[in-house]
Amino acid sequence: MKILFLNGPNLNLLGQREPEVYGRTTLADIEAMVRDRAAKQKVEIEFRQSNLEGELVTWIQEAKGKFDAIVLNAAAYTHTSIALRDAISAVGISTIEIHLSNVHAREEFRHTSLIAPVCRGVIAGFGANSYVLGLEAAIIVKAV
Amino acid sequence: MKILFLNGPNLNLLGQREPEVYGRTTLADIEAMVRDRAAKQKVEIEFRQSNLEGELVTWIQEAKGKFDAIVLNAAAYTHTSIALRDAISAVGISTIEIHLSNVHAREEFRHTSLIAPVCRGVIAGFGANSYVLGLEAAIIVKAV
Amino acid sequence: MKILFLNGPNLNLLGQREPEVYGRTTLADIEAMVRDRAAKQKVEIEFRQSNLEGELVTWIQEAKGKFDAIVLNAAAYTHTSIALRDAISAVGISTIEIHLSNVHAREEFRHTSLIAPVCRGVIAGFGANSYVLGLEAAIIVKAV
Amino acid sequence: MKILFLNGPNLNLLGQREPEVYGRTTLADIEAMVRDRAAKQKVEIEFRQSNLEGELVTWIQEAKGKFDAIVLNAAAYTHTSIALRDAISAVGISTIEIHLSNVHAREEFRHTSLIAPVCRGVIAGFGANSYVLGLEAAIIVKAV
Amino acid sequence: MKILFLNGPNLNLLGQREPEVYGRTTLADIEAMVRDRAAKQKVEIEFRQSNLEGELVTWIQEAKGKFDAIVLNAAAYTHTSIALRDAISAVGISTIEIHLSNVHAREEFRHTSLIAPVCRGVIAGFGANSYVLGLEAAIIVKAV
Amino acid sequence: MKILFLNGPNLNLLGQREPEVYGRTTLADIEAMVRDRAAKQKVEIEFRQSNLEGELVTWIQEAKGKFDAIVLNAAAYTHTSIALRDAISAVGISTIEIHLSNVHAREEFRHTSLIAPVCRGVIAGFGANSYVLGLEAAIIVKAV
Amino acid sequence: MKILFLNGPNLNLLGQREPEVYGRTTLADIEAMVRDRAAKQKVEIEFRQSNLEGELVTWIQEAKGKFDAIVLNAAAYTHTSIALRDAISAVGISTIEIHLSNVHAREEFRHTSLIAPVCRGVIAGFGANSYVLGLEAAIIVKAV
Amino acid sequence: MKILFLNGPNLNLLGQREPEVYGRTTLADIEAMVRDRAAKQKVEIEFRQSNLEGELVTWIQEAKGKFDAIVLNAAAYTHTSIALRDAISAVGISTIEIHLSNVHAREEFRHTSLIAPVCRGVIAGFGANSYVLGLEAAIIVKAV
Amino acid sequence: MKILFLNGPNLNLLGQREPEVYGRTTLADIEAMVRDRAAKQKVEIEFRQSNLEGELVTWIQEAKGKFDAIVLNAAAYTHTSIALRDAISAVGISTIEIHLSNVHAREEFRHTSLIAPVCRGVIAGFGANSYVLGLEAAIIVKAV
Amino acid sequence: MKILFLNGPNLNLLGQREPEVYGRTTLADIEAMVRDRAAKQKVEIEFRQSNLEGELVTWIQEAKGKFDAIVLNAAAYTHTSIALRDAISAVGISTIEIHLSNVHAREEFRHTSLIAPVCRGVIAGFGANSYVLGLEAAIIVKAV
Amino acid sequence: MKILFLNGPNLNLLGQREPEVYGRTTLADIEAMVRDRAAKQKVEIEFRQSNLEGELVTWIQEAKGKFDAIVLNAAAYTHTSIALRDAISAVGISTIEIHLSNVHAREEFRHTSLIAPVCRGVIAGFGANSYVLGLEAAIIVKAV
Amino acid sequence: MKILFLNGPNLNLLGQREPEVYGRTTLADIEAMVRDRAAKQKVEIEFRQSNLEGELVTWIQEAKGKFDAIVLNAAAYTHTSIALRDAISAVGISTIEIHLSNVHAREEFRHTSLIAPVCRGVIAGFGANSYVLGLEAAIIVKAV
Repeated sequence: MKILFLNGPNLNLLGQREPEVYGRTTLADIEAMVRDRAAKQKVEIEFRQSNLEGELVTWIQEAKGKFDAIVLNAAAYTHTSIALRDAISAVGISTIEIHLSNVHAREEFRHTSLIAPVCRGVIAGFGANSYVLGLEAAIIVKAV
Repeated sequence: MKILFLNGPNLNLLGQREPEVYGRTTLADIEAMVRDRAAKQKVEIEFRQSNLEGELVTWIQEAKGKFDAIVLNAAAYTHTSIALRDAISAVGISTIEIHLSNVHAREEFRHTSLIAPVCRGVIAGFGANSYVLGLEAAIIVKAV
Repeated sequence: MKILFLNGPNLNLLGQREPEVYGRTTLADIEAMVRDRAAKQKVEIEFRQSNLEGELVTWIQEAKGKFDAIVLNAAAYTHTSIALRDAISAVGISTIEIHLSNVHAREEFRHTSLIAPVCRGVIAGFGANSYVLGLEAAIIVKAV
Repeated sequence: MKILFLNGPNLNLLGQREPEVYGRTTLADIEAMVRDRAAKQKVEIEFRQSNLEGELVTWIQEAKGKFDAIVLNAAAYTHTSIALRDAISAVGISTIEIHLSNVHAREEFRHTSLIAPVCRGVIAGFGANSYVLGLEAAIIVKAV
Repeated sequence: MKILFLNGPNLNLLGQREPEVYGRTTLADIEAMVRDRAAKQKVEIEFRQSNLEGELVTWIQEAKGKFDAIVLNAAAYTHTSIALRDAISAVGISTIEIHLSNVHAREEFRHTSLIAPVCRGVIAGFGANSYVLGLEAAIIVKAV
Repeated sequence: MKILFLNGPNLNLLGQREPEVYGRTTLADIEAMVRDRAAKQKVEIEFRQSNLEGELVTWIQEAKGKFDAIVLNAAAYTHTSIALRDAISAVGISTIEIHLSNVHAREEFRHTSLIAPVCRGVIAGFGANSYVLGLEAAIIVKAV
Repeated sequence: MKILFLNGPNLNLLGQREPEVYGRTTLADIEAMVRDRAAKQKVEIEFRQSNLEGELVTWIQEAKGKFDAIVLNAAAYTHTSIALRDAISAVGISTIEIHLSNVHAREEFRHTSLIAPVCRGVIAGFGANSYVLGLEAAIIVKAV
Repeated sequence: MKILFLNGPNLNLLGQREPEVYGRTTLADIEAMVRDRAAKQKVEIEFRQSNLEGELVTWIQEAKGKFDAIVLNAAAYTHTSIALRDAISAVGISTIEIHLSNVHAREEFRHTSLIAPVCRGVIAGFGANSYVLGLEAAIIVKAV
Repeated sequence: MKILFLNGPNLNLLGQREPEVYGRTTLADIEAMVRDRAAKQKVEIEFRQSNLEGELVTWIQEAKGKFDAIVLNAAAYTHTSIALRDAISAVGISTIEIHLSNVHAREEFRHTSLIAPVCRGVIAGFGANSYVLGLEAAIIVKAV
Repeated sequence: MKILFLNGPNLNLLGQREPEVYGRTTLADIEAMVRDRAAKQKVEIEFRQSNLEGELVTWIQEAKGKFDAIVLNAAAYTHTSIALRDAISAVGISTIEIHLSNVHAREEFRHTSLIAPVCRGVIAGFGANSYVLGLEAAIIVKAV
Repeated sequence: MKILFLNGPNLNLLGQREPEVYGRTTLADIEAMVRDRAAKQKVEIEFRQSNLEGELVTWIQEAKGKFDAIVLNAAAYTHTSIALRDAISAVGISTIEIHLSNVHAREEFRHTSLIAPVCRGVIAGFGANSYVLGLEAAIIVKAV
Repeated sequence: MKILFLNGPNLNLLGQREPEVYGRTTLADIEAMVRDRAAKQKVEIEFRQSNLEGELVTWIQEAKGKFDAIVLNAAAYTHTSIALRDAISAVGISTIEIHLSNVHAREEFRHTSLIAPVCRGVIAGFGANSYVLGLEAAIIVKAV
């Protein structure tokens, strides 16, 4: 089993960016944490980040036939990208939307997700652990 | 560690109700599944269901000092109950909002949660496994 | 054939409450009138009222396998209760929404029904006769 | 007693038009069914259909002094015609709004009726039987 | 100078229709009153009424080259007819929108006029005298 | 008979201000024109202008018992002043809202009048002649 | 004279719940304070709290003929309960809506009250003293 | 193959009406142009215009069994007519919505089409050539 | 202790203005009533009224250092004046918003207050007694 | 004559992506089909696709002086990209917006186009033939 | 060159009012700072403040022919005054809207400016330096 | 001191693009003008442009530790990019939003900025001079 973890804009800054919202863990720390758990579960993962909406779209397209599930933290693009939504629909790979923070406790415009309706499920608010729970969810979704 | 699982209106019908949306697992099946996982994690759980908004409010209030976390599937009341929101704020116990289905892929009025802003996080769309992931999330949240 | 008549909040006050809107007939008068007509049609009826949203939800749930149709005057909960809507969807019993007054000629917030979309039909504005027409409609719906 | 049944645009196509929504009964079938019931009740009826908003307005105007009640299925004009609303207000004949389908279970724009606020009541969702119930309601309304 | 007075749906009922809003004067009374005043001003008038939106559109079209101004009481169509608006724009004859009642003191949906933006001006609220003032305004507008 | 003409903010600039919208006539020109016509009608008039919302409110208040009608061009305050609306309601003098330009053909925010619902009627779009028509309307309204 | 004080959901937690918003006074403290003042005014009071919307509805219904006024802190149900609104209209007892906090300085959804339009008046923002002022207001209202 | 071209209100004025928006070509010119092209494609066409919404509805109804496709420029009724929408759904003939002008570059209310959702496709903005492209599209749609 | 009572536009007309809404008591009557009660409480008061938004702003500014609290009936400006809101924030004197009538039972636009969010509390609906309760509230607020 | 065909995000997946909406034809098939028709018309075409909003912007900019028209299927960016709109305005090349599916029959958010107002026209709903019609339209537009 | 600096309501409190938002600098300090810079640029300035909307309107009117530009901090009136907007349009003097704070980072109602659309430009968020930048901008605007 | 000037989509076309809105100055002209002024102020600047949202995000991220302030003309992305907003928040460098044109005098959708709330201030409407004023503002902001 192979799972693709995609990270949207500004997640590369993790650990430096608004630590009161996102904590001090870096994206590399999270990747390590997820790799560790994935190893225990005998699951292969790939971990990428991009600030470009179109590159994220391309990565989702290329996942077809190579990955069993996608765990997607689209960050700011969650709320504005129909292109990501269309990419997920088009490739038909089970996708799980995740967020570090509880988006519902933040600005109004973060309460709406354009991609959630085409995802299998959503996990938000558990910091770095949202990724670990996303991994678990991806394994469950494929097992069902 | 002790976690309270609260279930809102109509969840007692699980397994009979709109199986194309919620599957054939009953609430008792889910409870068994959660108890099993909790046992492995050395966590004590309690599992309740009510159709009454006010009874759910009371249970949240009574959880104070007795439970370390609440995993709450408020079902229909998710979208209409300020009373539940106020109860969660009032007791100050970490609460995790869960849903069986991906609410964002359903009717417009299910896209808004009045309780999410006062919860620690949200998990939705993984069927019975939303409860298991909710258990994991509750343990993580308390460990942090 | 067995039909359940459910009455929501404040309908127990009928005859005292805003008589210029609802008339002076009491809920007992209406029940008598409906029983009379039902007897002629060889239909068994049951007639209940509750001020508690959750109790109405429970009664709808318990109707499964016992009643062929529900005639529901949800009163104030018509406009606010997703829980009632979910209960109707869950039990799959043909339900007819009725109102004493013409809700469309009253306050804006009474123009929207959360339960109508999952009901078979709606009858409003004929005072106590809305119940009699509801009975007729229930018989027709089951006969079709 | 004399009751006017008015049918709005496209109802002449009944039986051919979207049968999964409206069934296979034609408007002539419905008229026969209503005439039959009306005869039993010693009520005279007249039955008309027009695709022209203005012709429906004229027919309502001309009903003054000739009919005791109007049963009106305004179809598409239900949601857009202030002219029909004004005609009903102007002639002051008790009017009952009816619909074949449950309009609340269809597109958003069919949830609003411009004429309901000036009608005595509304009946929707019982197919051809909405007309029969409309007849009953008209007789009741005049008897009160 | 020749002025066309056009009257929309239900204005033929004037004098019978909601007299507390529109008074007891009939449309014929108003026509007489306007003819009288027009005669004094050496202005020729024509006075028509239709319940059909499309017929009003046609009359506006045919006015081209025959009338110097139009005084239009579009009644209900004021608030719903883009076709009337387009007709007025198309013929380029100065048009004055009039109303018997003060539409701004009535239902919300009567506060918006689709035709006012393409008219020269608006006069509302003076009962039958709105027609007389409309005549005066038409003469003024042509004189300018 | 005595009529008060009140003019709101910036009308003192008339003739200089956006002449393509309002023409080159000054407020003094308009006053002269209205005085002339009023004299013919044996009506006494008073003509005032203020840029202060509160001063206009006071003038309306003071009109009580001194004037038979008010012709009010509230200009910008038409769309924002509840205080003017309350003043008109409070004194109970027939008030006619007038505008030089056709406000419905201008910016969206000029389409709504807070004062129209408490006025007898509205006249808009006839330039300086809106004042003359306003005078006529005031005389008619008092005569009725 | 007899006044019923009704308290909605979560007010039983007072003193523990969000003390920065509501202070440390308990509901029992408030009851004592109100009893004290009522005794001075020779007024009898009754003081109740419920988390159940329907129970509050029932209490309002039962107040008929037993109480001269109701002082109602409906808490969360203020903003969502049409059932409470209908109960107040139905019994026709003068009701005063009170709030501990200034609801207008809090979340948007707390700015709208469904019950205020059927109450005599509203008092909000004075902590426990809102109850004392509510008592005073109830006495005044009955005295008028 | 036979295609019906239907034209809505005011299109009979083409060539005279707002030439800066619609050009100087008349509807007869367009018909000639379309006939010419249709002849080359061995397609029979019929070309009609009406200002009456209801007559357009009737023509669509009568097209059943006689025409293979409809090319519909509903003009103003595009934005307001549910009756036309229902007629198109009812007859089940492939319909192509066309517009002379680019409706999206005009007033806000022209941006919404009530009929587009039940049409096969939409062509707008190419002047008289919208008709020619509509003809091509109709042929393609039937060929598929 | 010194309390400033400020009254907004049209309150000087009290007793004459819409007596069915506001009663027949004049502003002078109210002042006397408040003075009387204030004397008993050993509190000094000052009582002013203005129709000018800007003058009310200035009075609030000048209250700084001279008054311990403000009781403000801003009347129409309650719903439109950000300037009053800013003045209250700027001087930092505890301010209590009062209204004679129950604003929530009147027009929609009176349901929103721009100043309430910066006030300590709100009292509405008790006629002249709203002032007396406002005085009590001001004393309580300072005592806390 | 030279026409640039630009394709937005996910169109490279054509033939694999939601075939029930878009059919099984690939983008290469469409290009071939368009090239074929263009050759017959002696028109040169260029055909590109990008998932990057900014790259599409750049291609539009670079088209200046090299292409006579642009046929643009902006896909998801149609509804969210002001940048594409500005690019089209900036270069001043006639642009035709096309869509494979009838966007008006899909999700609400696909009904609004940010680019249509600056395009010459719109063609939607004819599958691959939307490109062929787009080509025809582009030729027509340049010929006019 | 002569520039008029106009200050709206509550700006006279500067330095005392919400210092965490506006800082401790007084309006006199700002005037001194602006005078200093203006002197260096050989520009004459005048500096005024008023709490009265109408007085600000009058000052803008009187600026005609006396000032080359206006730098306007309309404070609260920015968001509510159409009268100020009309005054600016009427006099046709280049006006620059300035704000001390970044209005976009504050309450929702401060995000909309009624006057910005008729100003040359906007400068916000630089504290007292917004005035200095406003002076620079005014000089630049006149120089162009 | 070092300031980064970032330019969003289509600004590379400056001088060619809609000159009636933006003038004929090119982006290179503006850079020269800014460099000139910066040199006088002993400030180092860097000047970049991109059509890619993600590239602008990356440049803001990389500015951390290298630049003291950012002057950002995000053009079209101002109104749609949450990613840019998050980048600015994340790096914590003082950012000044600038625009060539007065965005408030243009289309509705240009009136809202997603990035302004996280910027220090906004400058709009002064053409190329918006950049010079932006430079001044950046220097001031750092000096404070």
